[in-house]
Amino acid sequence: MFDTIAYRVEDLKDYVRQFFRKLEVPEIDAQIAADVLVSADLRGISSHGVIRLHTYYGDRLRKHLIDPLSPLKVLNESAATLALDGGNGLGQAVAYRAMTRCITKAEEAGLAVTTVRNSNHFGIAGYYAMMALPHDMIGISLTNSRSLVAPTFGKRGAVGTNPIAVAVPAGGERPYVLDMATSIVPIGKVAVYQKANKMIPEGWGIDKDGHITADPGEVTGDGALLPLGGSEEMRGYKGYGLSLMVDLLSGVLSGAAFGKSVGKPSEKHHADIGHFFAVIKIENFRPVDLFKMDMDAYIRELKATPKLPGQQRIFIHGEKEYELENKYRREGVPLMTKVVDSLKEAGEDAGVPFDLEPVGA
Amino acid sequence: MFDTIAYRVEDLKDYVRQFFRKLEVPEIDAQIAADVLVSADLRGISSHGVIRLHTYYGDRLRKHLIDPLSPLKVLNESAATLALDGGNGLGQAVAYRAMTRCITKAEEAGLAVTTVRNSNHFGIAGYYAMMALPHDMIGISLTNSRSLVAPTFGKRGAVGTNPIAVAVPAGGERPYVLDMATSIVPIGKVAVYQKANKMIPEGWGIDKDGHITADPGEVTGDGALLPLGGSEEMRGYKGYGLSLMVDLLSGVLSGAAFGKSVGKPSEKHHADIGHFFAVIKIENFRPVDLFKMDMDAYIRELKATPKLPGQQRIFIHGEKEYELENKYRREGVPLMTKVVDSLKEAGEDAGVPFDLEPVGA
Repeated sequence: MFDTIAYRVEDLKDYVRQFFRKLEVPEIDAQIAADVLVSADLRGISSHGVIRLHTYYGDRLRKHLIDPLSPLKVLNESAATLALDGGNGLGQAVAYRAMTRCITKAEEAGLAVTTVRNSNHFGIAGYYAMMALPHDMIGISLTNSRSLVAPTFGKRGAVGTNPIAVAVPAGGERPYVLDMATSIVPIGKVAVYQKANKMIPEGWGIDKDGHITADPGEVTGDGALLPLGGSEEMRGYKGYGLSLMVDLLSGVLSGAAFGKSVGKPSEKHHADIGHFFAVIKIENFRPVDLFKMDMDAYIRELKATPKLPGQQRIFIHGEKEYELENKYRREGVPLMTKVVDSLKEAGEDAGVPFDLEPVGA
Repeated sequence: MFDTIAYRVEDLKDYVRQFFRKLEVPEIDAQIAADVLVSADLRGISSHGVIRLHTYYGDRLRKHLIDPLSPLKVLNESAATLALDGGNGLGQAVAYRAMTRCITKAEEAGLAVTTVRNSNHFGIAGYYAMMALPHDMIGISLTNSRSLVAPTFGKRGAVGTNPIAVAVPAGGERPYVLDMATSIVPIGKVAVYQKANKMIPEGWGIDKDGHITADPGEVTGDGALLPLGGSEEMRGYKGYGLSLMVDLLSGVLSGAAFGKSVGKPSEKHHADIGHFFAVIKIENFRPVDLFKMDMDAYIRELKATPKLPGQQRIFIHGEKEYELENKYRREGVPLMTKVVDSLKEAGEDAGVPFDLEPVGA
């Protein structure tokens, strides 16, 4: 849909790291934030990648709306539970540390939940869920977000696109990694169509009067996204219910903002975003090798399902992303030319010029 | 859609209890199973209620395909985790006891997960999630089920309608109770249209060739249900992903059957169904009174969302069910005449005649 320019993944990460260092983010947190952001592009979720470097992070750090030191505080702790205050820190650094502690607790207790209040946008939810995989654990990562999604029978946004990410290890097969917005599509997807002057499929969103619209500008304007499922007849109240569930766990349970109070990136106050992480140690339920054997068998069984006319493959969740990652590691990560332009412009202002050499240049 | 006859809820429960007693189910388990089954009718989920008394439970108990004694066995236990074998017992009795133990563990550990393998259909998932509510806890209940749902790009059932139930207490407002199949509709819904000789909305299911069909018989025949979201463009792979997630947690993690191996009620071998229960103690994360205050505020905020033309109310999940329950407790629980006929016929065979007096008779 767009012209792109490809860059080496390590070059991109190093640039983003330097960018955050310049904004007084400590070295280790700058590395984490760079890894999370570039991972989004690497996995093909470019709406959550470096395209957001300035609007979601750089601009807000510069305006002191995010604390670069991410001073995490423990509010409540037991063997299996941990409630944290993110100190209005950088979402990626806060979430990474929260998930790391959740994994450590689950190693001991077999199971752990960590909630975080007073945080910021953390990028792709799947990144944190996947942190559990090398430990033979199941990882779950949820976060609330600004209220762009209309509840069933409503015509304005009232719940977020609130993603659900779940990562489950397999044996010889690739792990299962679900990473989904609970709306049909995230707002970034609609914005891409808008920039390209293309119509969106009917059903993704509504205009200000609540009518289904194919005009992306009407959705991003005063309209709203629709929850997974869409209409009532197709059970859109389930998508609405899942979005609400994510907010109850990551917003209300953590003591963060929820619903319409969740901060927008453009607002001049703390976002007070909430996260929820859960980790399950497989060994506490059954031997890991048997678990992985069944995972492999299940994945192969699914792939052998008779296909719809014209279809060659059944995909497991996360599979397309792994394939893109492999490709982009070899061939470079494609960034939209418009994104590169804005990185160059804003890099200039920030004193971190974006002068990476494109792949094949 | 059907003619109905209403019965007093206590009469129905007592009848079902006696029915299970006659089939050598112990008194306490017979009471539990009766309460779960009639609760489905009471909450308006009649597809999961007494309509299944014979096909899902009675017939299988009589054929010794379910063990009426439900001999639960602990496979693995720690402070926060518990892996059980359901002993091929009655799903409701097994699930009730598994959730009770999960709540007890969460009372101590702040958090608990209990998995169950070797169980049977347990009725409505929401029943067990709601058991956490009086304890000021969040309850989660998942189960796998036979593979009636086509994965994205597939044309045959390969994953179950695998429900997700989550119950979250509120203060003055009613609790949030999500209880949803991960398919657009459960198979029972399609069967109801079929019995009524009505067409289903296009999008719920496909025929044997993978084409969307409005003929319910083609779906229940060699077709399949579609996952929440439906087509790829409307992100049906998210519903497929959620269904798979439920099976990974309740089937693979517990060591039960999964995917196409999950037993059908009509099959002559153990169903080996798996369940997953999780309980979160709110107090371990923040004070319960503050949590409930925020829940109430959130629910009121949602209800105040501007409505679509012609709509008067925004519903919170579980709300319609609470209202039906209140109505049916006053006016009697309506059962379809056809269901009453089959209860009478099968009750005769079982030596437990269904001779309840209808309300207002």
